Amino acid sequence: MSTDGRLEAVKALITAHPDFPKKGILFRNIFPVLRDPKGFHTLCDLMVEHIQSKCSNVELIVGLDSRGFLFGPIVAQRLNIGFAPVRKAGKLPGETFKVSYSLEYGQDSFEIEKSSVKLGQKVVIIDDLIATGGSMKAACELIEMAGADVVECYLVIELVDLKGRDKINKPVTSLIQY
Amino acid sequence: MSTDGRLEAVKALITAHPDFPKKGILFRNIFPVLRDPKGFHTLCDLMVEHIQSKCSNVELIVGLDSRGFLFGPIVAQRLNIGFAPVRKAGKLPGETFKVSYSLEYGQDSFEIEKSSVKLGQKVVIIDDLIATGGSMKAACELIEMAGADVVECYLVIELVDLKGRDKINKPVTSLIQY
Repeated sequence: MSTDGRLEAVKALITAHPDFPKKGILFRNIFPVLRDPKGFHTLCDLMVEHIQSKCSNVELIVGLDSRGFLFGPIVAQRLNIGFAPVRKAGKLPGETFKVSYSLEYGQDSFEIEKSSVKLGQKVVIIDDLIATGGSMKAACELIEMAGADVVECYLVIELVDLKGRDKINKPVTSLIQY
Repeated sequence: MSTDGRLEAVKALITAHPDFPKKGILFRNIFPVLRDPKGFHTLCDLMVEHIQSKCSNVELIVGLDSRGFLFGPIVAQRLNIGFAPVRKAGKLPGETFKVSYSLEYGQDSFEIEKSSVKLGQKVVIIDDLIATGGSMKAACELIEMAGADVVECYLVIELVDLKGRDKINKPVTSLIQY
């Protein structure tokens, strides 16, 4: 099947939920893909094929807590490279790099373990979805603080109208756009 | 290599952090395993081999947010079955089952999507670690509310002294005990 045919098969599994988690938001739910073994395999195939062809020099996959954890480890295993998490502040032990980022109301902080990223390493950051881009921007900053190199930010879903990619000065690729 | 030899190789990658996240707690960090491609493959091999041999009738893997997301989807893919998440209340759209569980201070709630579990389905629940067992007990209750059957609770790490397994009236298996 062509990439497009496979992509359409994955898209058909994603459900839309109006007014969730609050009024005016149309929530795109990725989980029905994961409960369909064929659909989930196809989604991971598409992610791996993209990274192999466009970022063949990648040395580490970084995934954002928590839905980046669904895809990052699988992609890392299939590429036979390591996986490292970005988590909310206070959840990772040992020495960490830390950045703050803005939420709709107030601020939050992300951390990465210093020992998880090597100087000069080529990193692909994976998350399930990019909306306004705040968390992906913060993740990029963490990788830069670690002296490593973000070769791509890779998202399953991009909410195009929210222009999250404009915040990020690294290559951004999404598999599915709404 | 024997199972034991492989298990020792994985155990050697797990780090221990005294007084994290607070004084008196010895934190076991699983993430160094994930950043080692060989170690992470070995860990997943051990999980999959156990489930194939002891729970060959499993039809769905359920993973707990967020560190169950690191292992559950990989195991589900390798068994060619679906994956469904248990998340904190308010994060899953559509109709859900919901249970409350006790924390050290106060309460929290877990949800699962009604559409993600089928009546009578054989389910293995996966998480990274069992401590006092409250969240795994709540996850079991959700699967029972859905009319499905927990054939096993499978943990990478068990903190034996905290006796979490005594709270759970389903088979509990852990790969590594401290």
